[in-house]
Amino acid sequence: MTTSDAITPASTTNESVGAGLSIGWHKGYAEGSRPGLRVPVRQVHLTNGKDVTLYDTSGPYTDPAVTTDVRRGLDSVRGGWIEDRGDTEEYEGRPVRPEDDGRSRDGLRNLDAVFPGGVRNPRRSRDGRPVTQLAYARRGEITPEMEYVAIRENVEPEVVREEIAAGRAVLPANVNHPEIEPMIIGKRFLVKVNANIGNSAVTSSIEEEVDKMTWATRWGADTVMDLSTGRNIHTTREWVLRNSPVPIGTVPLYQALEKVDGRAEELTWEIYKDTVIEQAEQGVDYMTVHAGVRLPYVPLTARRKTGIVSRGGSIMAAWCLAHHKESFLYENFEELCALLATYDVTYSLGDGLRPGSIADANDEAQFAELRTLGELNTIAKRYGVQTMIEGPGHVPMHKIKENIDLQQEICEEAPFYTLGPLTTDVAPAYDHITSGIGAAMIAWWGTAMLCYVTPKEHLGLPDRDDVKTGVITYKIAAHAADLAKGHPGAQDWDDALSDARFEFRWEDQFNLALDPDTARAFHDETLPAEPAKTAHFCSMCGPKFCSMKISRSITEQFAPDLAPSASEEEIEAGMLAKSKEFAASGGRVYLPLAD
Amino acid sequence: MTTSDAITPASTTNESVGAGLSIGWHKGYAEGSRPGLRVPVRQVHLTNGKDVTLYDTSGPYTDPAVTTDVRRGLDSVRGGWIEDRGDTEEYEGRPVRPEDDGRSRDGLRNLDAVFPGGVRNPRRSRDGRPVTQLAYARRGEITPEMEYVAIRENVEPEVVREEIAAGRAVLPANVNHPEIEPMIIGKRFLVKVNANIGNSAVTSSIEEEVDKMTWATRWGADTVMDLSTGRNIHTTREWVLRNSPVPIGTVPLYQALEKVDGRAEELTWEIYKDTVIEQAEQGVDYMTVHAGVRLPYVPLTARRKTGIVSRGGSIMAAWCLAHHKESFLYENFEELCALLATYDVTYSLGDGLRPGSIADANDEAQFAELRTLGELNTIAKRYGVQTMIEGPGHVPMHKIKENIDLQQEICEEAPFYTLGPLTTDVAPAYDHITSGIGAAMIAWWGTAMLCYVTPKEHLGLPDRDDVKTGVITYKIAAHAADLAKGHPGAQDWDDALSDARFEFRWEDQFNLALDPDTARAFHDETLPAEPAKTAHFCSMCGPKFCSMKISRSITEQFAPDLAPSASEEEIEAGMLAKSKEFAASGGRVYLPLAD
Repeated sequence: MTTSDAITPASTTNESVGAGLSIGWHKGYAEGSRPGLRVPVRQVHLTNGKDVTLYDTSGPYTDPAVTTDVRRGLDSVRGGWIEDRGDTEEYEGRPVRPEDDGRSRDGLRNLDAVFPGGVRNPRRSRDGRPVTQLAYARRGEITPEMEYVAIRENVEPEVVREEIAAGRAVLPANVNHPEIEPMIIGKRFLVKVNANIGNSAVTSSIEEEVDKMTWATRWGADTVMDLSTGRNIHTTREWVLRNSPVPIGTVPLYQALEKVDGRAEELTWEIYKDTVIEQAEQGVDYMTVHAGVRLPYVPLTARRKTGIVSRGGSIMAAWCLAHHKESFLYENFEELCALLATYDVTYSLGDGLRPGSIADANDEAQFAELRTLGELNTIAKRYGVQTMIEGPGHVPMHKIKENIDLQQEICEEAPFYTLGPLTTDVAPAYDHITSGIGAAMIAWWGTAMLCYVTPKEHLGLPDRDDVKTGVITYKIAAHAADLAKGHPGAQDWDDALSDARFEFRWEDQFNLALDPDTARAFHDETLPAEPAKTAHFCSMCGPKFCSMKISRSITEQFAPDLAPSASEEEIEAGMLAKSKEFAASGGRVYLPLAD
Repeated sequence: MTTSDAITPASTTNESVGAGLSIGWHKGYAEGSRPGLRVPVRQVHLTNGKDVTLYDTSGPYTDPAVTTDVRRGLDSVRGGWIEDRGDTEEYEGRPVRPEDDGRSRDGLRNLDAVFPGGVRNPRRSRDGRPVTQLAYARRGEITPEMEYVAIRENVEPEVVREEIAAGRAVLPANVNHPEIEPMIIGKRFLVKVNANIGNSAVTSSIEEEVDKMTWATRWGADTVMDLSTGRNIHTTREWVLRNSPVPIGTVPLYQALEKVDGRAEELTWEIYKDTVIEQAEQGVDYMTVHAGVRLPYVPLTARRKTGIVSRGGSIMAAWCLAHHKESFLYENFEELCALLATYDVTYSLGDGLRPGSIADANDEAQFAELRTLGELNTIAKRYGVQTMIEGPGHVPMHKIKENIDLQQEICEEAPFYTLGPLTTDVAPAYDHITSGIGAAMIAWWGTAMLCYVTPKEHLGLPDRDDVKTGVITYKIAAHAADLAKGHPGAQDWDDALSDARFEFRWEDQFNLALDPDTARAFHDETLPAEPAKTAHFCSMCGPKFCSMKISRSITEQFAPDLAPSASEEEIEAGMLAKSKEFAASGGRVYLPLAD
């Protein structure tokens, strides 16, 4: 929870936003040191007059004072800050080609789908030197972005700068994505959650993907990866970027593969690099690069139970095998670093050899690649590129800690960004849960961002409900980890909800919940009447008996008498006196609300 | 997985059981050393001709050769074994009274609801000496029940006997519940899951509770607790017991409280003892007894955020306060031990002071009670009563291990039976997940049985869907723990499913899943056509590209060449040769299924 004193509420209260959804909180802003530096927060107004302030990822969509238009895109948050730095310049970008949208055969772009808000000229470093938050942090500069996340995280700006400068945290913020509300990924900060979206050759549309993005951030996604593989990749991404309040990640290799009609061996460094430029100009904030899948590691996977399950990993493995050559990503990594530094695209070094089954966890292939990621991390930092490291996958509980410990050691504490891990293979349709268990544990031990897994994992593409379930499950894992790490203020949220529960403030309990709608709906299924929401009982025990009520009466009886220094004798005396009072008052342990 | 050679399949295959549900497995039996000792197993027949054998809790309901009738009850499994021991006798039991069904005011039993199968005379120890599995184990006897669980757990019977004799495991099996299929709870064995059912003053009927019981065991519940608090408590329990293939637990205090119309201070040892006898005669296998809530501990809860959240705990606290006397359960504990030993009712020593919020975890009240439970455990063992210890509650991840470590130390490794723990308070409606995280961790560290939490926790009574979700979530936690503990054979299940996944055997993947129905339904949402279930791709990547397919081709290319002793040179040579073959074969990394 943010404890900033300077919270400005949004101009009106906001009971109904986002697809007509009723929410129990109100948008507010914590003001920074300069005009326009306004950090969004969720304010839950409790019925006891208190306010609880929570981190907010939902963007302008939940501010009734802002009119959003998906065809126009969001207003710029960072545009002025980027310009003020004076180290970037606009230039005439790479023209969009039919093959960028998977139209290599018919040679036509789908102009009906093109983002109507228009395309700005892209921006990049004026002189080729890095324009990254890492470069600024190393120079001792606290950027507005750093101040912004310091307010969000309730820490001093200098802590943010230090963590970024040391490579222990990243602040993904492409100069071509001025719409984002800056956020930070690092183990000293709140654990973050990424939600994947993306159409595929089989299903889903541009509108659906934009909707999934806003829906995911509505429930708490801190970043969104667009993993589209079907047609209209470029155009879908443009819509998503222009409407996203959170950093957007991609895997450029997926689009590059589309450009060669799915023939991995036809990929070249030139096609790949062109795709990276295309995406960097659009504003992608971080890119998964599977440069650790090296030729000599491919045979290490041959004896595995489930081989290579990462799409990026298997594309690169197929390329290496076809040419019997070292990976073009590994060979050209330094050139890629120099390129990304000019846009401040953050690396997410992909774990292409992550285990896809319990049997394959922590094997030679996985750890060989991790060592290479450590080597690449060092190179990236030399070029001033912010870098995080991706992690597994399927890992049984007793092998999880080894992953984070090794990663932290090998990669000089660069932020770890893990998929789960899934702690068993036997529960398809419930892999949000099998992986939520592993995610909570690995985040407790230091993972900085968790990539969500939805109930559809292994089975199909997630729909809107799956996205919500995945995000909520991962917010649970992240918050459980924040508690276990002793993150300052994390427990205030639990305490506020538990207080509401203990005091039978049902509406406050709902409004403080990660998912107020479902909590309220579940309660109303059994006790739908309005009075039940203020009743001093719930449907588990009914009106005749309630343990919470008994406890409250104990507290009311004893708490005033029991100063921490009370002696055994005083306690005894107090209890005897109260025993008499209790009996005199009729000795009923419940209020006579009903029979 | 059971590896017994002697599996007899059920007489016919069984595609549709239990509410018309299609299942992907077939009932089989592993034969023991004597006629009638037949241990049920689930056999999954894979499309590759292999069989996978899994633990089965579903009882005769999933055997098409057995005709079940809920009005008659299940056939006896253990009746002959109990009689053969010759240490028990039938007697004329305590007559059922109107107040047993909460009819103290109108004085009438609801005869329409009475179990139509009739009431047998109860059975108890012939001479007052313990007739418990603990007593037999200590005498060196391997009972048929012990042999039964040895087959189920795939261990030697002597291991079962030893663990029970040492008090590290319990085999809950009341002599008046001959219908159960014996099971064992202890850290050397598979982690077990309990599901709670029970009507309340507000809602639900006898039929619903019996249905929830069979439904819970259908999905894997190892025991069921009937926590009814409304009318027809006695009668509901009779129906549940007579139809349950798993041990049934209760909290006798709940019924005792009904008998005094909810006035805790009117409870007496006599009313409580009478209720225990009533329930023991019916066949309750284990009873939660909150004898650790002692008078001096009550004030320790006054400063808590959420006081006493256990119903049993708060009833006893209210009684202690009203009378300013030590708990009648604590004072009469030895008499209770002597009584339970004559039926072989297992203790589940309740943690009445468990924390109800993150703020209250691991506090003085909780651990004071735990020390008392250790003392009571020792007394119970002296009387030959099998004993397990209940545990929390709401506990952040970093405080979980202290709970199990302390419990194991204080209670001489008696089985720990925990509710979750919930790792955060902020997600009502998702507490199956907040608690599934904690449950997996505490089970890895030694908890023997997990009490499930459903999505309705804190909000209302679970319906059928909630029961299923709760059981599946907890089966995931239990199996994840079995894997992390390195339980022999646990990973075979994951391996079988991962093999099926890697080889695109979709039907095998579904049938091996914890929930085949939902896995199949999720898959079919995106790719409903029948051919898609055998297709070599799935909807995540579509027909053009699939990482699994690439991996398989790597394995097919390299695995035969790569004997574990292959030298670097051999690997290099093999790769070059394969690179040429790959190019010669067209170099496509996917099959030309479409587009």
